[in-house]
Amino acid sequence: MDRIPDPAVVVLGGRVAWTGRRSLLPPEWVGARTVDGRGCWATPGFVDPHTHLLFGGDRSGEFNRRLHGATYAEIAAEGGGILETVRATRTASVADLASAGEARLAELHLRGVVHVEAKTGYGLDLESESRLLEAYAFLRRAGWSLDVTLLPGHEVAPEFAGDAEANARAIAEDWLPELVRRHPGVAAFCDVFVEKGVFSVDQGRRIFQSGQALGLAPRVHADELGWTGGAELAAELGAASADHLMFCSEAGIASMAAAGVTPVLLPGTTLFLGMRDWAPARRMIEAGCAVALASDFNPGSCPCLDPLLVLRLGCLQLRMTFEEAFTAMTLHPARSLRRRDLGHLHPGARAAILLWDLADPLELVYWLGADFRPEFPLAEEP
Amino acid sequence: MDRIPDPAVVVLGGRVAWTGRRSLLPPEWVGARTVDGRGCWATPGFVDPHTHLLFGGDRSGEFNRRLHGATYAEIAAEGGGILETVRATRTASVADLASAGEARLAELHLRGVVHVEAKTGYGLDLESESRLLEAYAFLRRAGWSLDVTLLPGHEVAPEFAGDAEANARAIAEDWLPELVRRHPGVAAFCDVFVEKGVFSVDQGRRIFQSGQALGLAPRVHADELGWTGGAELAAELGAASADHLMFCSEAGIASMAAAGVTPVLLPGTTLFLGMRDWAPARRMIEAGCAVALASDFNPGSCPCLDPLLVLRLGCLQLRMTFEEAFTAMTLHPARSLRRRDLGHLHPGARAAILLWDLADPLELVYWLGADFRPEFPLAEEP
Repeated sequence: MDRIPDPAVVVLGGRVAWTGRRSLLPPEWVGARTVDGRGCWATPGFVDPHTHLLFGGDRSGEFNRRLHGATYAEIAAEGGGILETVRATRTASVADLASAGEARLAELHLRGVVHVEAKTGYGLDLESESRLLEAYAFLRRAGWSLDVTLLPGHEVAPEFAGDAEANARAIAEDWLPELVRRHPGVAAFCDVFVEKGVFSVDQGRRIFQSGQALGLAPRVHADELGWTGGAELAAELGAASADHLMFCSEAGIASMAAAGVTPVLLPGTTLFLGMRDWAPARRMIEAGCAVALASDFNPGSCPCLDPLLVLRLGCLQLRMTFEEAFTAMTLHPARSLRRRDLGHLHPGARAAILLWDLADPLELVYWLGADFRPEFPLAEEP
Repeated sequence: MDRIPDPAVVVLGGRVAWTGRRSLLPPEWVGARTVDGRGCWATPGFVDPHTHLLFGGDRSGEFNRRLHGATYAEIAAEGGGILETVRATRTASVADLASAGEARLAELHLRGVVHVEAKTGYGLDLESESRLLEAYAFLRRAGWSLDVTLLPGHEVAPEFAGDAEANARAIAEDWLPELVRRHPGVAAFCDVFVEKGVFSVDQGRRIFQSGQALGLAPRVHADELGWTGGAELAAELGAASADHLMFCSEAGIASMAAAGVTPVLLPGTTLFLGMRDWAPARRMIEAGCAVALASDFNPGSCPCLDPLLVLRLGCLQLRMTFEEAFTAMTLHPARSLRRRDLGHLHPGARAAILLWDLADPLELVYWLGADFRPEFPLAEEP
């Protein structure tokens, strides 16, 4: 993260054409129409590389049960948890899903998030996953900057209860090809919840390989509630990302670093689930990984649309420096989404520029709980 | 925490005169001027029982050093930490201190905090502590609802470096009596940082006993960075509160419960310092303590003016139920401040009523990171 004193940014046709010290501004730009930054800090917009944006209902009832002592695993075993949201999502209309999604994207955008990765995964059958893709396609047509990830392997579907193997086969052989055929160009990634009691590493591998054959790059829900080898699988597949990683092994870290897999850490989820094991961000950074941070926005384990809380937890509990955490909210997630024009302000970047009226960007973290909102000097439409 | 369906609250002269189901409204109030709650939840305002409201400067530079690996103790050993803020506070004018304090109180009030405990402690000499009291007296005259705590024993003063014993004697024998003489009626409480390397239990006891003779009830900075027996001391003295308590012993918990000492827990500080040891709230509740939560607002270890973050951490990491945490932000802190008219909406309560436009107050915690703001239906002036 470079800091440029007294900077100027030249924007042409919605792209950054030049960035540098104002005193070095090339003569051809002198006299162009200017927007005064008034001494604010200009930064790239945040990129959120892991959300479950679309779902029906909420899970505040289950949350209250957890506060009274029930565990996430107990609730799931009773048919609650993800499956409760699946029921509410299957009965929601595409219009209702898209409308809720738009409100959530607007909230994220107000707080500086200019691009979002968003997963399916609360349908868990072909038709319901297809309707989620329809809603995402609508949101993209409406102008929201989104990357979509297919996640029919978010949980073993109720129709396949007790038979994850058959569910994985249906996803790999039938659902993924059909979803891509029905909605060409909507999804760019594929994800599977690889975890004890959900899908095994072998089942995950088969789903991911099917997705890769369809042009979907893997993003892996890995090592969230215990070690399963999800990070190692992500490295083997050359995945775009491995996400969660609270229980990632040293070998998993080394393999991600060697394979260029982006670890996406979700500290809001650790906080919301009341866990005491935070992802080993420092060890990943020391191993050479380009760590990213994400909200994990979802109704069960992190109903949070606040990028500043994620940034703050990255510094305070994952023990990243401010520069590491800020890069983990901008450049690194953009890279994991194959978006070379986001997460920075170098020439070629999309001009999704934020202005922060602060003496130093570090204050975003330091004034814990302050609801800082950026300005959008170019009033870029979402 | 009782929940009253379809309630009415009768307010007369700024006090609650009656609260209950609307259908049971006594006939003498039918037809009175009404304010429509529009189906919102009405709650008492928050009471924050532990802040260091007034100080000069900030400590974002030190914070950045911590993010790069320096420890709080290392920084303090180099003359940073509290002593950095002492230097900035000693050179600030009373007007500047009061003006900063007013902005902070306004921010807290917008977020629903209607009463604040506020400490001196960044002066550390007679004249500077006296100026802090002058600023607090100004804020009270300006109408802010404040209780003031004398904390000249916040740290060993630079003039007494290496001689905590002499510092404690000066506080107990000279400063406290003189501060009370100069500013009669401004402070109601006395506090000491009882911790290894600061003031011992014996030194703390002498300062507190001097304060008690002057009518100041003890509030104890206890067992924050390690066990020192601060909770046991608080119980022995019949203190109003013991605060922090991350390293409180089982004996300390039992003695607080027996003596009716309010444990005041500060989870924002645990978060901000990146600590992994949260105060044992559940064990305190099970022992029968009336646990309270507070912000600990201060520039070094918790620059946080967000009561919702404190409430959320109470539930998510201290593992309190919503009802326990909400009571810990209202009724229990009011009791620890000897304010029988705050923290509830029963007859006699000050009419500091908040309205929350939510389906259920639990959403205050569930929607992690959402910046919910209350309405003030009676537009009570601060």
